[in-house]
Parts: sequence; C-alpha cells; structure tokens
Amino acid sequence: MSTNSSWNVRTIGTVRSPRKEPTDDNWGLIESTIELNSTLESNALDGIEEFSHVEVVYIFHNVNEDSVCDGKRRPRDNPAWPEVGILAQRARNRRNRIGVSICELLQRNGISLKVRGLDAIDGTPVLDIKPWFSELIPMTPISEPRWAKELMTGYF
Amino acid sequence: MSTNSSWNVRTIGTVRSPRKEPTDDNWGLIESTIELNSTLESNALDGIEEFSHVEVVYIFHNVNEDSVCDGKRRPRDNPAWPEVGILAQRARNRRNRIGVSICELLQRNGISLKVRGLDAIDGTPVLDIKPWFSELIPMTPISEPRWAKELMTGYF
Repeated sequence: MSTNSSWNVRTIGTVRSPRKEPTDDNWGLIESTIELNSTLESNALDGIEEFSHVEVVYIFHNVNEDSVCDGKRRPRDNPAWPEVGILAQRARNRRNRIGVSICELLQRNGISLKVRGLDAIDGTPVLDIKPWFSELIPMTPISEPRWAKELMTGYF
Repeated sequence: MSTNSSWNVRTIGTVRSPRKEPTDDNWGLIESTIELNSTLESNALDGIEEFSHVEVVYIFHNVNEDSVCDGKRRPRDNPAWPEVGILAQRARNRRNRIGVSICELLQRNGISLKVRGLDAIDGTPVLDIKPWFSELIPMTPISEPRWAKELMTGYF
C-alpha cells in the first residue's frame, strides 16, 4: 500500500452556529445545530437520542492551504508557550484540516441535531457523527504539559 | 457553500500493528506503532511525549464502498440489539470510513509513536494525530443505551 495515498471524503452535514468567526474561548454554552444533507438516509440518526454526547468529525474549512503548518509552532503564537509540533497541538491550521470534538446532544429532530459546546463555526462541513461511549475515556491517568492546561482554561 | 462538497485528504502515516484482521474485542493491551510518512516535517511530533494519550484519526481502509451503510442496521448484526442509524453507532462500514480513537502514548522515536490500545489494524492509513487533553472529557454526565454498554464489554 502506498503511504502517500489520498482519500476523497464527502460532507454529510453542516453546522449552524451563532458563532461566525473562529474565536478561541467560551465554547461551552454555545448551542448549535448539525443538519444532515442528502448523502445519508433520513434514518441514519435513529437511536442517537439515547446518547447524551456525540463526537463530531469536521473540516476546518476556512483554513487556507498556505497557512497549514507541517512542522512546529507556538500554540496560538503565544510567546509564553513552547514551540511544539503541529501533531502535539490541536490547532486548526494542520494538514488535512480535520477537527474532532465531543459535545452534548440536546435534541434530535429528524435529520438535525441540536448540540451544546460544539467548537465549530457556522457553515462548518461535517464528515461524520459518532455516539460517545463512556468506555472511550482513557482508563490510565491522563497527563499533559502546563501550556495545554493553560490553553484550555476558559475554552469551554 | 455547497452542502454536498467533497474534500481530498492525505495519509500522513501508517499503523503497524500485530493485529492484521479487524476483530471486535480485546484491543486494550495491543501495542502498535504509528509511522509518519514524508507528508509532514520530522519535527511535527516534537513535544507530543509530554502527553500521556493521543487521539488518532484514520481510514477504515479495507471497508468496501458497497458495504457502506447509509441508513440503519443492528450493531455487529447482533439480533439482541436494536436497529439504529449508522450515525448512532461507531461501526466501520460508514460513509467516509473515518475512525477516531484515543490510545495511550508509550514512546516517541523521531517520526514514530509507540502506542497501546489503538483499535486499528496493521496498515491503517492515518489522517491526523492530536494530543488528548483531560479537559475534553465531557463535564456533564454521560449516558448511553444498554446495547452500547454491552458492546463495549471486552472491547478494550
């Protein structure tokens, strides 16, 4: 198998959010909607209302190709934090521009989901939605560097 | 923006795992390696060793297009479990065939990561690696249907 292969993925839905610009913090109380398009059947969400949380896979669609970082940089260009590789941070301007977020599922209405705490702006193309299982939380202790803890203060 | 747009994403690395076939259970102790290819720079992983866990985004590459489900089905075709929409389960044969897993980071060696508990078979193309932050665990109580709890028994 080629290690440089590429894949074509399709938008299955779109985020409708009151937040129109990618700001850094205070996503926790944002209520938004994910509307499926016609790629999937209308029953593709059946049963999802039994889950309290969903995981959303999406594209950071307004990141330009020429702003993608393939090496290292300071998170949020903050001089107080160390330069780390793009795969050691969750910044938007990464190769493939894929975002993954867990959010609270408030309501399902047909082909649309009302969610809280989804950190994706209005118009974000959605590639996948998965139910979140509590068993997916790591069983071993989680540790992270100080800069990551500081960055996440005020994020949600 | 078109809601039916498609996106081209590139493999940035490959999973090397002792598990060659997609079996359902007992992933917890599997040790595997993620090797980056030349899409990214060699410092793209710098600093990741300060995290205990990483999130891996990958392609279920051996799922055939004609086995993708766009509607509903029983998880694992188990007659004891209800038919639910493909987006209400984490089955492989889903549109875009994207998998997302959190696993334990054991060691970084240059452009390769040794991990434990990654439920992706040998040869799996990797689209992204992100550090896992403890702040990403939902703050509100997590609930899920009984079938999901049963399915996850023995998974890790």
